[in-house]
Amino acid sequence: MLEFQYHLPVNFVFGCGKSDTIGKKAVALGKRALIVTGGSSTKRSGLLHKIETLLQENKVSFCLFDKVTPNPLTTTIYEGAALAAAEGCDVIIGVGGGSSIDAAKGIAFQTVNSGDINDYVFDRKFSDQALPVIAIPTTCGTGSEGNGFAVMTNPETMDKKSLRCKAIVPACSIIDPLLMTTLPKSILAGVGFDALCHSMEGWLSSLAQPLTRMQALEGIRLSAHSLGKVYDDPSDLDSWEQLCFASTLGGMVINTAGVTAPHGMEHPASGLKNIVHGRGLAALAPVIFEESISGAPEKFAIISKLLGGKDEKDCVPKIREFLTKIDLATTLGEQGITLEDVDWMAENCLKVSAAGIANHPVVFSLEDIKRIYRKAI
Amino acid sequence: MLEFQYHLPVNFVFGCGKSDTIGKKAVALGKRALIVTGGSSTKRSGLLHKIETLLQENKVSFCLFDKVTPNPLTTTIYEGAALAAAEGCDVIIGVGGGSSIDAAKGIAFQTVNSGDINDYVFDRKFSDQALPVIAIPTTCGTGSEGNGFAVMTNPETMDKKSLRCKAIVPACSIIDPLLMTTLPKSILAGVGFDALCHSMEGWLSSLAQPLTRMQALEGIRLSAHSLGKVYDDPSDLDSWEQLCFASTLGGMVINTAGVTAPHGMEHPASGLKNIVHGRGLAALAPVIFEESISGAPEKFAIISKLLGGKDEKDCVPKIREFLTKIDLATTLGEQGITLEDVDWMAENCLKVSAAGIANHPVVFSLEDIKRIYRKAI
Repeated sequence: MLEFQYHLPVNFVFGCGKSDTIGKKAVALGKRALIVTGGSSTKRSGLLHKIETLLQENKVSFCLFDKVTPNPLTTTIYEGAALAAAEGCDVIIGVGGGSSIDAAKGIAFQTVNSGDINDYVFDRKFSDQALPVIAIPTTCGTGSEGNGFAVMTNPETMDKKSLRCKAIVPACSIIDPLLMTTLPKSILAGVGFDALCHSMEGWLSSLAQPLTRMQALEGIRLSAHSLGKVYDDPSDLDSWEQLCFASTLGGMVINTAGVTAPHGMEHPASGLKNIVHGRGLAALAPVIFEESISGAPEKFAIISKLLGGKDEKDCVPKIREFLTKIDLATTLGEQGITLEDVDWMAENCLKVSAAGIANHPVVFSLEDIKRIYRKAI
Repeated sequence: MLEFQYHLPVNFVFGCGKSDTIGKKAVALGKRALIVTGGSSTKRSGLLHKIETLLQENKVSFCLFDKVTPNPLTTTIYEGAALAAAEGCDVIIGVGGGSSIDAAKGIAFQTVNSGDINDYVFDRKFSDQALPVIAIPTTCGTGSEGNGFAVMTNPETMDKKSLRCKAIVPACSIIDPLLMTTLPKSILAGVGFDALCHSMEGWLSSLAQPLTRMQALEGIRLSAHSLGKVYDDPSDLDSWEQLCFASTLGGMVINTAGVTAPHGMEHPASGLKNIVHGRGLAALAPVIFEESISGAPEKFAIISKLLGGKDEKDCVPKIREFLTKIDLATTLGEQGITLEDVDWMAENCLKVSAAGIANHPVVFSLEDIKRIYRKAI
């Protein structure tokens, strides 16, 4: 029986050079913008300066909030929202990697709703109001430009969990592959594998539905094909375009189908030790999938084929081969996670990632989760 | 080079029995509804009564506008909009086939914008405002529940052309396959072929882009597979679900990729002689495609394979075979079109369907269009 709900009001402007349209897109959404970004890369690259100039040319005034760090904190979101309110901003522009865009979404939400954002993150309160967000990603991984998720970490509890809300689906996402072609290889590998995981997990999820299945299969196919290519040859612009689109697809997929165990188990690790999300996934996904094939062999067989394998049996070897090719084969241990962290992470996993664990093809118990963390260390 | 814009804020509630949710969906969007429908089938089936009861239970007041006819007229839209304004309606519920839903969209637009709606249809004026629309389709063909199009005919000029506007993308579409399973076979064949044409034309269109290509291929595959099945066995609910979803996909596809020559050339015929849209398409599509293969052999080969053929050469024979199977093989002549109508239709085609003709794999001249009309008579 086919039953689903689907509501994802994305608005994409995709293509090389499209970041030049930011002024026109912004003036259609507001008069005073808060630009949300990290401390350095968008300044160094000249992108921030370009955006400021284009906003000025289009008579959109702005102020800058450049305090976003990787794995953004709820406290940073409060600080940004206070600035947006004090400055009377009516549109939020997120520029940078997933952290900047997620922070921009969180700030857009918090500016309107105030109070304890954790109430909304943990579904104790609900709002469908936020300031409009424009997303300009400079990495091709989180897919945040394609969904209504904003991952944030509460520094008091180390809970890393996403706010999920239709109102923070960006009112406009400008996806310009030229902003990504200078990504250092080590960052590229992590964000690209994150994108691949979104599509694989959404494909495996028990919440998958016809529209997300199409998006996921195309997302897996395109990321698997293009990530290795741009890793080897950063001048291959066609492959960059494919990878960027694959990343956006992955973001769309998880909005509706959710993530499963790899993301569910990675969040406690990067919440606790601030490790790089894509590296955490690289350590966990193969170990988790080894214990998951039996839950959905036909789905793993399809992933395997898209990665060049034959059937479900070589799905994990193909993923390991892929990780080796992009120099991302790793363990949690190499990233500073120790056996002493396992109990906290496993319990936190069932707290912040209950949904992702429930959507997985094999539903893991607390003991299963501990065992898998140990194997991944 | 990959470049596209994509903005289609659909909101689907899909599944057998989901029409029972209309009350809850309506109360979230307004306080007083105008129900827009045709004269008889939604009354006879009890659906209208059920909707009225559910609205009452959810304290949404309503009034009824039941004057929609096939190929709805702009004058009918004016009449409905006047009623909506006089009654202070703040949400429009379209219930029925594509005509009712398109009329509901037109009324939702006209109530807010007033003036001559043809100014908006012919892009002389622009608005992104309309009352929210709820669509409850009872046929699986137009896909109107999945897009921001509303086709209407101006009775003064016989121009049949669509209003295209983001604001009339339904705020909620309730797609309940159980509402369709009693469709008479002769209507089913026409609407189902319309759905197949949307996906085929969107696939062929020069405006196709990655997201519409996925939707189109799945739309072709599912309609081709399921239409014949439900035509033979109306109790096959799985196939009804597939066909309904395929129809919605077709509607999504054309919102972004546009239609091509079959729809472009059919509109003048049904604008002039009020013929059944799906029958007009059945007469025209095979003749048009015969003259189009050379423009995109690789795309026609893929359609052919999805219809059970081998390559582009047997694409049209496979379409004719399919039409014969659903008793829809026909000519324009059998529907009352004569050679004397050809000049008007060809000229009108370049007036109302310039975009569709321009998107087609072979761009036809006025003389080509006349010749094809003659062949289809």
